[in-house]
Amino acid sequence: MAIQFTDADQVAVNTIRTLAADVVAKANSGHPGAPMGMAPVAHVLFSKFLNFNPKDSKWANRDRFVLSNGHACALQYIILHLAGYKVSMDDLKNFRQIDSNTPGHPENHHTDGIEVTTGPLGQGISNAVGLAIAQAHMGATFNKDGFPIFTNKTYCFLGDGCLQEGVSSEASSLAGHLQLGNLIAIYDDNKITIDGSTDVSFTEDVEARYRSYGWEVIHVTSGDADLTAIAGAIAEARDNNTKPTMIVLRTTIGYGSLKEGGHDVHGSPLKADDIKQLKVKFGFDPEKTFVVPEEVYDLYHKAGAAGAQKEAEWKQNLDAYKGKYATEHSEIIRRFEGRLPEGWEKHLPTFKAGDAAVASRKLSENVLNAIAPHIPELVGGSADLTGSNLTRWKGAVDFQPPSTGLGDYAGRYFRFGVREHGMTAVCNGIAAYGGLIPFGATFLNFVSYAAGAVRLTALSNLRVLNIATHDSIGLGEDGPTHQPVETAAWLRATPNMMFWRPADGNETSAAYAVALTSAETPSTLALSRQNLPQLEGSTLEKASKGGYVLQEAENADITLVSTGSEVCIVVDAAKQLREQGLKVRISSLPCFEVFNQQSKEYRLSVLPNGAPIMSVEAYSTFGWNEYAHETFGLKGWGASGPYLKVYEKFDLTPNGVASRAAKVVEFYKKRGDKVWSPVDKAIDYDTMLSTAH
Amino acid sequence: MAIQFTDADQVAVNTIRTLAADVVAKANSGHPGAPMGMAPVAHVLFSKFLNFNPKDSKWANRDRFVLSNGHACALQYIILHLAGYKVSMDDLKNFRQIDSNTPGHPENHHTDGIEVTTGPLGQGISNAVGLAIAQAHMGATFNKDGFPIFTNKTYCFLGDGCLQEGVSSEASSLAGHLQLGNLIAIYDDNKITIDGSTDVSFTEDVEARYRSYGWEVIHVTSGDADLTAIAGAIAEARDNNTKPTMIVLRTTIGYGSLKEGGHDVHGSPLKADDIKQLKVKFGFDPEKTFVVPEEVYDLYHKAGAAGAQKEAEWKQNLDAYKGKYATEHSEIIRRFEGRLPEGWEKHLPTFKAGDAAVASRKLSENVLNAIAPHIPELVGGSADLTGSNLTRWKGAVDFQPPSTGLGDYAGRYFRFGVREHGMTAVCNGIAAYGGLIPFGATFLNFVSYAAGAVRLTALSNLRVLNIATHDSIGLGEDGPTHQPVETAAWLRATPNMMFWRPADGNETSAAYAVALTSAETPSTLALSRQNLPQLEGSTLEKASKGGYVLQEAENADITLVSTGSEVCIVVDAAKQLREQGLKVRISSLPCFEVFNQQSKEYRLSVLPNGAPIMSVEAYSTFGWNEYAHETFGLKGWGASGPYLKVYEKFDLTPNGVASRAAKVVEFYKKRGDKVWSPVDKAIDYDTMLSTAH
Repeated sequence: MAIQFTDADQVAVNTIRTLAADVVAKANSGHPGAPMGMAPVAHVLFSKFLNFNPKDSKWANRDRFVLSNGHACALQYIILHLAGYKVSMDDLKNFRQIDSNTPGHPENHHTDGIEVTTGPLGQGISNAVGLAIAQAHMGATFNKDGFPIFTNKTYCFLGDGCLQEGVSSEASSLAGHLQLGNLIAIYDDNKITIDGSTDVSFTEDVEARYRSYGWEVIHVTSGDADLTAIAGAIAEARDNNTKPTMIVLRTTIGYGSLKEGGHDVHGSPLKADDIKQLKVKFGFDPEKTFVVPEEVYDLYHKAGAAGAQKEAEWKQNLDAYKGKYATEHSEIIRRFEGRLPEGWEKHLPTFKAGDAAVASRKLSENVLNAIAPHIPELVGGSADLTGSNLTRWKGAVDFQPPSTGLGDYAGRYFRFGVREHGMTAVCNGIAAYGGLIPFGATFLNFVSYAAGAVRLTALSNLRVLNIATHDSIGLGEDGPTHQPVETAAWLRATPNMMFWRPADGNETSAAYAVALTSAETPSTLALSRQNLPQLEGSTLEKASKGGYVLQEAENADITLVSTGSEVCIVVDAAKQLREQGLKVRISSLPCFEVFNQQSKEYRLSVLPNGAPIMSVEAYSTFGWNEYAHETFGLKGWGASGPYLKVYEKFDLTPNGVASRAAKVVEFYKKRGDKVWSPVDKAIDYDTMLSTAH
Repeated sequence: MAIQFTDADQVAVNTIRTLAADVVAKANSGHPGAPMGMAPVAHVLFSKFLNFNPKDSKWANRDRFVLSNGHACALQYIILHLAGYKVSMDDLKNFRQIDSNTPGHPENHHTDGIEVTTGPLGQGISNAVGLAIAQAHMGATFNKDGFPIFTNKTYCFLGDGCLQEGVSSEASSLAGHLQLGNLIAIYDDNKITIDGSTDVSFTEDVEARYRSYGWEVIHVTSGDADLTAIAGAIAEARDNNTKPTMIVLRTTIGYGSLKEGGHDVHGSPLKADDIKQLKVKFGFDPEKTFVVPEEVYDLYHKAGAAGAQKEAEWKQNLDAYKGKYATEHSEIIRRFEGRLPEGWEKHLPTFKAGDAAVASRKLSENVLNAIAPHIPELVGGSADLTGSNLTRWKGAVDFQPPSTGLGDYAGRYFRFGVREHGMTAVCNGIAAYGGLIPFGATFLNFVSYAAGAVRLTALSNLRVLNIATHDSIGLGEDGPTHQPVETAAWLRATPNMMFWRPADGNETSAAYAVALTSAETPSTLALSRQNLPQLEGSTLEKASKGGYVLQEAENADITLVSTGSEVCIVVDAAKQLREQGLKVRISSLPCFEVFNQQSKEYRLSVLPNGAPIMSVEAYSTFGWNEYAHETFGLKGWGASGPYLKVYEKFDLTPNGVASRAAKVVEFYKKRGDKVWSPVDKAIDYDTMLSTAH
């Protein structure tokens, strides 16, 4: 049955448009064009289609809405306000102001009703693919005959910018392959980008491109005004369960403005006169601002009430499900609370010195094999490097459309393809859905390809794991094009990102232990291709502090501090130095971020005053002076060759370390002054944190 | 006229296949599958089509060849060897060994005949778009009636991996828009990736996708054997000058191996038995390795000789051109020698204290306006942020297909679209062509989207400028999604990348001066959205050292060191501190990379012993301890609001700096010991450089 629209609907659309102009004008900053152009489709979607309960914005089976063109967030905030989420009229008036509820681009952990953080273009649509994957997986895992527990759709608005970004190409191709019939993208085809007409750079046939990915494409040519046509397209897309659908919606950017249809309305407030004529045109008082007619609130509150009713029915059904499927029910509850299963950590492997040397990528595989059966919410895959990343645990089933015969939607292992950026953005969406802990895997060097999404994982407080193998020049023959040198510095400098570089089995287990129990922090695990010995002095507990003393010495001449595959080199160097009569301490620092969270007292016990501290790592030394007086590592790129030869080339050997350490000891002895640890600072890390948050 | 193939051609193809197996087996590392599968097309292209002179691999009008699936480089090295480039049989035997001429993936500055560095997937095809743009531009600029000086084609091999990467989508869409008829991509459609069949993740219709971008697509279904069909397709593609062409070539990965057609032959050497049967199959002695029949060398040397003849004719024509177009001729010579025009630097703006405060993005625009008329090889554009990046200089003409009416191929300004990664990879290709200095512009935060290409700019020693505006929390209302915090650390940790963050007009001019005269080093210029005062004490010359003393003080209590928009905050903080009776020095450090190249003596004069050094920067403090004892900056994300309010929120104000500085002075006075500069090290930066290269 076709939806009947009334005058109130048109008033609602006009209200959104005038409010958008007011919101941006009051902030004197922001983007009025897209909100005004997309007001009709936003109204139709939220008031007639979207299943949501503004009073319980975390309802597990709500439809997900993603604003991939996040600069249009005035639109989203307005809709959330109208619908009764915790976005007040004052919040709208404080758009883009410090500490307001309505920042310049939508942030998931900041504003009620925002599913994912958007603004950086192309991310939202890729997150939407992840949200759709998550629904398909949860449905396949938990739904039973008569109990459609997870049935929600994912709707995503996006613009020309999102479509130009490569990350959306990657994720959209994957979505087509996966036949995600629960995904509906609505493309704001307004022919305008910041540089002007799309004619200057974007003349591809978007529709043909999306069809080539395996999407259905529907057109609405009258997106500015024809609410019935918009509703028809959405209904058709919603009911197509075999493919993702893109609705190509022709709109006029800044519709109603004197400058509609041009790029001037994209990213700057409308002039006061323009806003006045706009209000007159739409039947509003030109002298009043922030006006919402009562009928509009009524309309939206009705939609919200209908959603609340749907949630109530869903909950009733879930109760019945509980009676019949008690185990599954408690699993759903546990998983949406973000709690790991009791006792999972007992399955983490531990090691003692003398156990066989193993590559940390292989140690990671052992962890996955050990814990995957006990943490069913752990899902993940590789960007086409499964056999190298060693991420497919025993008995894993691929997440694939059942029709392919290659797996099913209950499968927990993803074949992401050679799509690192898309993979990470998809993982962000999966994590944002709830009930799942996703990982993505590639070589550490290619985590950089995903940098745009990685920073959003961290900014969005999402528990996503990047499993990053082949983590240094130790990968050997593939050479400098594949050897990360600068990558660790980037990830260590990223707030709320735990970059782990474990040195052995216990440290690898510690990395997983902390990563999986950190519900609001993503982790990157840098893992070696080459074998690493199990170290004397390492334990899971000690490594879980991010840094610890591996070998203690009283009245030490020097502390050597290192990570990952270089720790064993340092251990051998220390032996040489001791033969020369020097007293050497060794500290291992697998995760700076976690180490920084320890007390100053603890940090000083690991990196104490009294002797010089020298770091050793097969990366750029950049950043190490936070912990060490002297740094030894790479100042340039790596090299292609068998890995031991590569280490030799750069003198990163026990000899090379020992000779530098001896020089360091001599230098500071000659200087004669007391040596203060770099950790012993006037402006302490803890203080910094408090000023910066 | 169709090309006639002889038995010698088949022998050549078989030689390439057996050599590929030998090369990878001897290295016990590498990728035999694609070289064996693509041997026929490589042979046809190089022996019948490509215009090249192995004795002058830098001939300006040579056809460019790019191996986007760089892991197949055994193929490229073999062809270069056969053709007579400086790649010897010994080099082939040293494949993937330390310091060999034949590293694990192709590196442009390493091996004769390699145009661009590839291996990281998707980069090569995007570089190829840049190479094609460069040819179109040089042709439109310099060709005259009867003088077709720049007419070369760009050929690119690529595989499934390249096509899955978003960067190739971005660049390919742009190539279609630009109607680059000089670009021919040959897709190795072998249906295999590392994870197995492309069925597991890559089922899109590639042909339809490329048609949607505006490419022509040609099929060759018998790519394993039908040399005539391959030649026909290449001829057709070469002669289509209105659109880029993709040849979809069905091949069998590892053709001839017992494991042909499967992913086992992708990335591991063939077994000894397999190689033997392969040789028998192809008529080679199974007991011999590295065999090249004389007729194969003959065939390739003939092709090389034909190329040499073409170059000779081209040079003759260029001499005639010189007679008629002396100015243009000398321009061509100058530009391909990489020399800037005499006196260009006189046009760089300089400033004195008291001149108006100006945003550094605007200062950058002034530089571009001043120098663009005098450096005709400077070309560039923005990823759809022209009006924000301020990169379109006065009188610029857009690089566009003439038929669009929007510009022409002689235009120097690019409309890259919202495609940061593609933009940077395209700039790499433009720079690699020669005769051009490209820049790409976006917000600093979105340089991260291009990280995969940025590291290759640096690794490839290419003079590319990243103009990166809106460089901090100072961008204000757009909020944390757009405010880089971690980005500077990444770029500073990247070898051979100059990250400039100028504090005023003189420093902005210095950044351009050093960037443009550094022929083998790329630069990123981080520029403010907000106005910055012209500083007392800054000069272009001083800033060109990467760091200098802005304000000196004898017996100082503290040195404050800062960059960019925070230097003026530090200047105000210093005033406060002096009022409290403290003696304060200020150093400005706009570029770490350049500062590190100065003598230790100079560096110690900027950051001397004797008093604590405190850094101030509105970024993650990560890395600053290389220069400062104490660091003040951000430990978390930014915030959305008017920029001065954002600075206030994080206490990055004169007050906030002064109060911390006072605390630092007190802390070190109380400690009582002599304060040693972090620059005064046992392991000096210069030493490190020598060990690491």
